[in-house]
Amino acid sequence: MQLKLEAFTIENIPMIKKGDDLAKIICKNTDIQDYDIVVIASTIVSKSEGRTFTLDNVTPSRRALEIAHKNDEDSRFIQAVLDRSRECLVGSPILLVETLNGHVCIKAGIDDSNVENGLLLELPADPDSSAKQIADDIRKLTSKRVSVVITDTNGRSFKIGQTGVAVGVAHIKPIKDWCGEKDLFGKVLEITEEGVADEIAGTANLLMGEGDGGNPVVIIRGLLMYVESVVTIKDTYRPDGEDVIRKGLRSL
Amino acid sequence: MQLKLEAFTIENIPMIKKGDDLAKIICKNTDIQDYDIVVIASTIVSKSEGRTFTLDNVTPSRRALEIAHKNDEDSRFIQAVLDRSRECLVGSPILLVETLNGHVCIKAGIDDSNVENGLLLELPADPDSSAKQIADDIRKLTSKRVSVVITDTNGRSFKIGQTGVAVGVAHIKPIKDWCGEKDLFGKVLEITEEGVADEIAGTANLLMGEGDGGNPVVIIRGLLMYVESVVTIKDTYRPDGEDVIRKGLRSL
Repeated sequence: MQLKLEAFTIENIPMIKKGDDLAKIICKNTDIQDYDIVVIASTIVSKSEGRTFTLDNVTPSRRALEIAHKNDEDSRFIQAVLDRSRECLVGSPILLVETLNGHVCIKAGIDDSNVENGLLLELPADPDSSAKQIADDIRKLTSKRVSVVITDTNGRSFKIGQTGVAVGVAHIKPIKDWCGEKDLFGKVLEITEEGVADEIAGTANLLMGEGDGGNPVVIIRGLLMYVESVVTIKDTYRPDGEDVIRKGLRSL
Repeated sequence: MQLKLEAFTIENIPMIKKGDDLAKIICKNTDIQDYDIVVIASTIVSKSEGRTFTLDNVTPSRRALEIAHKNDEDSRFIQAVLDRSRECLVGSPILLVETLNGHVCIKAGIDDSNVENGLLLELPADPDSSAKQIADDIRKLTSKRVSVVITDTNGRSFKIGQTGVAVGVAHIKPIKDWCGEKDLFGKVLEITEEGVADEIAGTANLLMGEGDGGNPVVIIRGLLMYVESVVTIKDTYRPDGEDVIRKGLRSL
C-alpha cells in the first residue's frame, strides 16, 4: 500500500504573547482534520505561557563565573542555564546540560532570538502537558482528535547543523518499536526502535525556517500509524547508565 | 506564503540485486517531476552495487578479538567493521566508528538484516557519487532534474531510537545556513545551520519502515528552496578538533 504524508505551514499566525490561546489561533487559520499532527515551535508555546525572564535578579555562582569567563558570556546567563539544569555535561566550549525535564541540549534551550530586547525565553516547564492541553483545546473547538508535537532545534554529535527535535508530545508515539517484526527474509529484527517524534519534528522544521519568515506551526497529515493515546517524550531519553556518550563527557 | 511538502512511497520496487538499474526501476514505478527529491535507502543502493560480503576470509586482529569477547560477537565481524573504519571511537558496549568516508555510526553501517543468509551488506563506497549517478541516470531517462538523498538509520546521543540520516547527497543542500538572516525583531541570527539532508532522511524514514513492509524509496516534493547543484555530505561532518563529544569518548 502506498504511504503518503503531507506537511504544510499555517499562515497568519500573529506575534504570540502571554495568554494567547494557541488552539484557537491555529483552528482559526486552518481546517483541522481528525488525526492531524499539529507541530508547534516551543518558542510560541513558551510565549503564550509567559515564560520570558530577565537576568536582573540573577546572582552568578562561582561555577557560573568560571564558565562565563571561559565562554566569554554573561555569568548571569550561565547561572540562569544552570538553574534550569539537572546536570551540566559540558561547561566549555559549549554549555551542554540536561534540563530539569530530562532533555539534553545547549544552554537549557534558553532562547535570546525572536524575543524582544532584554528578554529571554525558556522552554515550557512541562512540554508534554502543554502539548496535551493544546490537543484537548483543539478537540473542544473542533471535535477533531489531533496529536501535538512541541519542537525545538538542537545540534547533534559528530555533525554540524541543527535539526528539529521533539520536546513534548501528545497522542503520538515518540518511539516506534519494530522489535519482533520480520525483515525481508523472515529474520526477526532485534533492536530497532525509531525516533518517530524527532523525525516528525525534523519534517516540520524543513518548513518552519529560522529567520523572520519563520512559520511556527506546521500540520502533518497521513501518519495515523503513529497515533497513540497516552505518551510522554521522556520515553525517548536514554537511561543514564546505558549512555556511553554521557560517560565520555563526564570523564573529560 | 504557505509552504507545503508531500512525501510518498513508490510501490512495486522489486527485491534489488547486483547490477539492477535503480533509476530505471524508480522511473518505471512513479511519475518523476522536476525538483523531486528521491530518497533511497542505502541498503538497495548497496545491493545494486553488489556490496555484499562474507566473513569467510577475515582474520581477526587482537583488537577485534578483545572487542568481540566483550561484546559477545563474532570476532571476524568486528574485524570487518574495523577494516571499514578510520577510527574506532568506542569498542564496547557499542562499536561506534568513523567510517572511511567520515560518517560516524555503529558497526560502520554494516547490515545483517534484509540480506540473504550468511551475507553482510556494507554502505556504498562513495555515497555522494552513487547519489549523483542515480540523479544523472534519472535525468537521462526523464529529462527531469532531481535531487537524491541516500539514507541509513542511526542512533543518537542521549536518546533512544534511531532516525533516518543522510549518508550521500546529490543536488540538495546538506546544510542550510541561516546565519546573517534576521529574526522576528530584526536581530541578526548568529550561529544557525540546519541539517536539512538529515531532516529529509527523517521525513522519508517515517514512511520507509524497517520490517518486511519496508519501502526503500520515497519521493519528497515541495522543497525547491534546498536544491543546490554541487554538494557533498562531507559538509555535515563536524571537524575533529571542534568535536567535544569525540574528545569525551577518546578520554574513556
